[in-house]
Amino acid sequence: MSAPKKVVLAYSGGLDTSIILKWLQTEYDCEVVTFTADLGQGEELDPARKKAEMLGIAPENIYIEDVREEFVRDFVFPMFRANALYEGLYLLGTSIARPLISKRLVEIAAETGADAVAHGATGKGNDQVRFELSAYALNPDIKVIAPWREWDLTSRTKLLEFAEAHQIPVAKDKRGEAPFSVDANLLHTSSEGKVLEDPAVDAPDYVYQRTNAPEDAPDTPEMVEIGFVQGDAVSINGEALSPATILTRLNELGRVHGIGRLDFVENRFVGMKSRGIYETPGGTILLEAHRGIEQITLDSGAGHLKDSIMPRYAELIYNGFWFSPEREMLQALIDKSQEHVTGTVRLKLYKGLARTVGRWSDHSLYSEAHVTFEDDAGAYDQKDAQGFIQLNALRLKLLAARNRRLKG
Amino acid sequence: MSAPKKVVLAYSGGLDTSIILKWLQTEYDCEVVTFTADLGQGEELDPARKKAEMLGIAPENIYIEDVREEFVRDFVFPMFRANALYEGLYLLGTSIARPLISKRLVEIAAETGADAVAHGATGKGNDQVRFELSAYALNPDIKVIAPWREWDLTSRTKLLEFAEAHQIPVAKDKRGEAPFSVDANLLHTSSEGKVLEDPAVDAPDYVYQRTNAPEDAPDTPEMVEIGFVQGDAVSINGEALSPATILTRLNELGRVHGIGRLDFVENRFVGMKSRGIYETPGGTILLEAHRGIEQITLDSGAGHLKDSIMPRYAELIYNGFWFSPEREMLQALIDKSQEHVTGTVRLKLYKGLARTVGRWSDHSLYSEAHVTFEDDAGAYDQKDAQGFIQLNALRLKLLAARNRRLKG
Amino acid sequence: MSAPKKVVLAYSGGLDTSIILKWLQTEYDCEVVTFTADLGQGEELDPARKKAEMLGIAPENIYIEDVREEFVRDFVFPMFRANALYEGLYLLGTSIARPLISKRLVEIAAETGADAVAHGATGKGNDQVRFELSAYALNPDIKVIAPWREWDLTSRTKLLEFAEAHQIPVAKDKRGEAPFSVDANLLHTSSEGKVLEDPAVDAPDYVYQRTNAPEDAPDTPEMVEIGFVQGDAVSINGEALSPATILTRLNELGRVHGIGRLDFVENRFVGMKSRGIYETPGGTILLEAHRGIEQITLDSGAGHLKDSIMPRYAELIYNGFWFSPEREMLQALIDKSQEHVTGTVRLKLYKGLARTVGRWSDHSLYSEAHVTFEDDAGAYDQKDAQGFIQLNALRLKLLAARNRRLKG
Amino acid sequence: MSAPKKVVLAYSGGLDTSIILKWLQTEYDCEVVTFTADLGQGEELDPARKKAEMLGIAPENIYIEDVREEFVRDFVFPMFRANALYEGLYLLGTSIARPLISKRLVEIAAETGADAVAHGATGKGNDQVRFELSAYALNPDIKVIAPWREWDLTSRTKLLEFAEAHQIPVAKDKRGEAPFSVDANLLHTSSEGKVLEDPAVDAPDYVYQRTNAPEDAPDTPEMVEIGFVQGDAVSINGEALSPATILTRLNELGRVHGIGRLDFVENRFVGMKSRGIYETPGGTILLEAHRGIEQITLDSGAGHLKDSIMPRYAELIYNGFWFSPEREMLQALIDKSQEHVTGTVRLKLYKGLARTVGRWSDHSLYSEAHVTFEDDAGAYDQKDAQGFIQLNALRLKLLAARNRRLKG
Repeated sequence: MSAPKKVVLAYSGGLDTSIILKWLQTEYDCEVVTFTADLGQGEELDPARKKAEMLGIAPENIYIEDVREEFVRDFVFPMFRANALYEGLYLLGTSIARPLISKRLVEIAAETGADAVAHGATGKGNDQVRFELSAYALNPDIKVIAPWREWDLTSRTKLLEFAEAHQIPVAKDKRGEAPFSVDANLLHTSSEGKVLEDPAVDAPDYVYQRTNAPEDAPDTPEMVEIGFVQGDAVSINGEALSPATILTRLNELGRVHGIGRLDFVENRFVGMKSRGIYETPGGTILLEAHRGIEQITLDSGAGHLKDSIMPRYAELIYNGFWFSPEREMLQALIDKSQEHVTGTVRLKLYKGLARTVGRWSDHSLYSEAHVTFEDDAGAYDQKDAQGFIQLNALRLKLLAARNRRLKG
Repeated sequence: MSAPKKVVLAYSGGLDTSIILKWLQTEYDCEVVTFTADLGQGEELDPARKKAEMLGIAPENIYIEDVREEFVRDFVFPMFRANALYEGLYLLGTSIARPLISKRLVEIAAETGADAVAHGATGKGNDQVRFELSAYALNPDIKVIAPWREWDLTSRTKLLEFAEAHQIPVAKDKRGEAPFSVDANLLHTSSEGKVLEDPAVDAPDYVYQRTNAPEDAPDTPEMVEIGFVQGDAVSINGEALSPATILTRLNELGRVHGIGRLDFVENRFVGMKSRGIYETPGGTILLEAHRGIEQITLDSGAGHLKDSIMPRYAELIYNGFWFSPEREMLQALIDKSQEHVTGTVRLKLYKGLARTVGRWSDHSLYSEAHVTFEDDAGAYDQKDAQGFIQLNALRLKLLAARNRRLKG
Repeated sequence: MSAPKKVVLAYSGGLDTSIILKWLQTEYDCEVVTFTADLGQGEELDPARKKAEMLGIAPENIYIEDVREEFVRDFVFPMFRANALYEGLYLLGTSIARPLISKRLVEIAAETGADAVAHGATGKGNDQVRFELSAYALNPDIKVIAPWREWDLTSRTKLLEFAEAHQIPVAKDKRGEAPFSVDANLLHTSSEGKVLEDPAVDAPDYVYQRTNAPEDAPDTPEMVEIGFVQGDAVSINGEALSPATILTRLNELGRVHGIGRLDFVENRFVGMKSRGIYETPGGTILLEAHRGIEQITLDSGAGHLKDSIMPRYAELIYNGFWFSPEREMLQALIDKSQEHVTGTVRLKLYKGLARTVGRWSDHSLYSEAHVTFEDDAGAYDQKDAQGFIQLNALRLKLLAARNRRLKG
Repeated sequence: MSAPKKVVLAYSGGLDTSIILKWLQTEYDCEVVTFTADLGQGEELDPARKKAEMLGIAPENIYIEDVREEFVRDFVFPMFRANALYEGLYLLGTSIARPLISKRLVEIAAETGADAVAHGATGKGNDQVRFELSAYALNPDIKVIAPWREWDLTSRTKLLEFAEAHQIPVAKDKRGEAPFSVDANLLHTSSEGKVLEDPAVDAPDYVYQRTNAPEDAPDTPEMVEIGFVQGDAVSINGEALSPATILTRLNELGRVHGIGRLDFVENRFVGMKSRGIYETPGGTILLEAHRGIEQITLDSGAGHLKDSIMPRYAELIYNGFWFSPEREMLQALIDKSQEHVTGTVRLKLYKGLARTVGRWSDHSLYSEAHVTFEDDAGAYDQKDAQGFIQLNALRLKLLAARNRRLKG
């Protein structure tokens, strides 16, 4: 790979990406464009602008954008149509944000004539893979620079020395090592590393930053009604809201009631296991609600097919293949299934639990006439079950007869 | 089907199966053998014996058995090795008990020279299918009698008239209609019908019979440690216990802490949707714990394969195909995966939630040396990630180049 | 089911469906509408019209239609996009025709105010299921009459007696029993029953009606080039042709060269095994060609996903679920994959074999620059393979180390 | 990776691996052990011994073994139980041989105290991955040396210069470049590269080395009967034979009749497409025969499950994951299905085609009594089909009614 001339950097404004910014300038003598996105991580973006300016980035090279609506509408919601869970439990909060960031990096590179993009993910994790696969899928000629895999700033001490040598301000609370590492966006907050590295040891309370402990949540349950149209949430308690607003409101509900905490050991794409603490307050409510509305609007053939492909879909997102033909094919299948996933779900929120307790829809396939224990007025002929069972049993009978014959 | 001469009836001792008993005698003029199993449903079996005797069953034709250990060891535990969930949420508590009952019915038929078996499931539900597929798979020549599909006792009034006409005692509280229908065993209690038939309406509190409401559960969390050997729970808090004892203890823990309630609309095999309230206190804890121990002992290739076949496995059990080649093939695959699923999980139980908070094992695949944010002493070469990403990206680059070429 | 008032009958003009026609009139005293479709079965349709008239059908109640283009365009081609094979070998020639017939039956019922449709499939086969599932999926209130399951004309003798009693002319060669049963359309001819019922015994030569024996095929191979656009064949040897014309031409090529014979024992949906002789001359060539063009235009992620869902897709079609949400979801996935399946394949046809020998496309993903044994000018860095292998191996190493540790 | 001290080299005796041998000695100054296996590639092994001796390998460091029986019994046959085909067509002849070689390399390393193994696969192909994943899975601490990824002998000229400089004899016919590259073993011969690199251009006749052209095959078909026990071939025309002998005999039959040629463009694991010419004469016959015996002995539930996991199983083998938990889990599933796959198949071989024409077995599930068009004496009640269809249709009707209601 030839040296980059102009690099678009995914820039948070924090110490690490500021060091990367300066390192790119010094290592490659290249122009740097910064991209700072508001994904709902809950941090002010203005400081990032000021810091970029201070580090010598030209104003026209500083991109700061609020992408929360795009994030929820085009990434989070499509994924939730699938009820995606990685390894049975993880709601993919980090995984789903990376492709959006890469997409904007590549687009900004095209706009600014940059030939490279850079990110601050390490060489041990999944995020490097997600950033880079997305970037290459969108621009096969883009260069990707991953400083953590390249440089020799391999210890905290070296990083701080580099920062001081290059006049990068270091906040006092960043001098010591953080006791764990955090990623956050509108969907979730993840924490990993350091004090969390032994999966036998309970995570300390202070790791949870985004949700009340269930023990501290209100003693009174709260009911909430979520409206869906074609698989996407569109309202809360009857109020129509934008995608990002819905997730924001659900996050607040989940935060209060201590919903969405997960202590998890997962398999990284790069081959090792890692332990993370995830908090996905709104997403956990949303998954439960989406399942609730599917229960009455989705046919069993459609639902079972969805269930069977879900693990693969989730794995693709986890592994960074959002922009791949197979993820898009699965999305086409999933979206096709959601045409009638429209209606309302009532949930009860209480001390860590979000539980569906009612659901209704004009698109419902539930037929009280068929299922009732009472007289069904001929909707269903119980005699049909006889033939249904006989023909389902036929091959089993033939098997049993064969096995008996061979023994006999 | 020619008329049966001797029938083994799955007999609970309750009103409905007592009516069936008498109906079989009068309708077919046949000898009846009763089989009453203790599956952990929480009812005394002695009254069933007395009632059978009173209805004229010869003592040698009355089979009463405690099958709880067999149930958990040979049915529940193998199923839990798969983390089986039907339609994402249901732990299959009713489904998994049926094959065991059919197996005993068929075996008793062989012992007693009976040519038929009979059950009390209706023509609208799944249980008829499960009973009959299991029976036919074990004896292709067995006759199965399903009175609910045959007789004309199609209303409560007619049933009670039949009971009175045949001197079947009717308990006072059975004169009125039950407000819903219940099935129970050591794994779960299900409730459905009547007051539960509108899925938009919350289930009344009195439907829940087996668990505290989370609101009524203790305000203090409880920790529990569950030990596993090759995928099966073998101990609680360090005390080695038999399968049924483990499930019994977990049920008690779950009951106290309000764990395992599910309000669910599911797709029946016979083609309609139905709404059920499930309480699976111990099973819900067990699933969470099994996932916890798999997280550190199961390789990702094994785990992802298991996840991908799980929906099919669960569907087979739900649909009644426990005794089928494909269920046995999947079981072989699942069991193979569990060879190293050995270790201990610590869970926190609190007001409806069972959450893994720690897990450890001699069989752990978790490598702190690899995952650490600290110096890993060369366990992992971050440079390898470069090649890993490049080759994973190659096809995506070729796709992007192709698409760009066609547009260009 | 109340008695039908007006019935649309799938009418071939042959003896069996003529008897059905008359039986419907006499049994139900209902008006009959006949629908005779040219699906490419190779029979004249005019005799069907005359016979219907002779049996008293009003001219406005006689529907005769050439549906060959619709058949190939909307049913055969979408299915071939999936490379669908049932149980590894069967090209689903009968299965795929049934939904089209049912669709027209239901549409004609709506046009003519009929409340029922009828077909001539027996109670042992798959076709009854396919006809009826399709009909119900398109009109949930339609009645379906399956005379073979209802009437008492259970022997050849009784059928002929009925025919004579009702002045239905019986061709001399129909007096005796046919030595096997045949179904044909533009995609294939199937033969089963009677002389074919013992799967150990070779099918007699005279069963094959649509293809030369390979031994009798020309001694000189023939090359053919098939052009594809988005997964569908659009040209032969450079000549643009309509879907039905393409299949007709390929059938002729296949017939001459003895291509597409299959002696097969399959699992029917109704639970039994049956043996059939299939001849699918054009379809066999088309499958091979479609695979050939996918080889260079389809990405591996897309292709492997397609391969993994194909058996389920084929099973759905075989079982009669063409008009089901899950088939439509899978079709959406498949169609999404075909956007770039455009290009040309050259095949060699010779004595039963159709073999791809060349393929090219503007949409090709094949990169000689990457694959070449020669100097690739940096297209591919072989060093990347080192990291790719190391990270793919990491979990296997951790497994091996764990297992070694436990033994040691 | 520290420098290896003693290396076990997969040594063919050919020019390339002789150069590797010498390069290992000179580059690493290490002891070399050679392993030459007779996998049925059709070459004498004695010259390899002589050449190794000439290159200075101590006699006790020369391992020459006939592994043909192990190859077929433990690798080829288990794979054929699955009817494995990669990307629909490729019988995995190269893929399946690699794990065996790696297994022996690692075992010999343990016996001889070597700390490394080496192979002659390039950095562009799949074989490096297969060799190395297998090696690491069997010994997590083994070093693997892949000279083609390391050295600077990047052209034919440099290789020959190296050979001359080190007194490695170069056969006259090796001075020029081979027009394509070949791999062979008892299962297949593959050819790729050079003259085959343009997938639009027909492969020259001289590429095919192992089979007659169909045009040159006998004009008279030949019948062959293959006996199976539990999924494995055990006899030909009634003669019991060892696994390797069976494959050898089938290869000869296939060779004569021009069976098993494949012109294929496949997706390599490393991300690129490549074109290969495969000849798998015996394997092609064996696959057809295995399918034939499964047709009558395997239940549909078992068969459809097998079909659905086959693509994943084949992909695992192709990608080099033979020694992985998920391959072993799938093997457990597959092997479980084969318990009754016992019986005999008759095939007709003729000019490139191997076609099943008869099959019989004591383990047959085929029931002429059920399937017959004649009177079945009550084996099957056609009325059962009514209920079977009604209940399968129920959800489709509910869907249709819902959709109609919403439109209405």
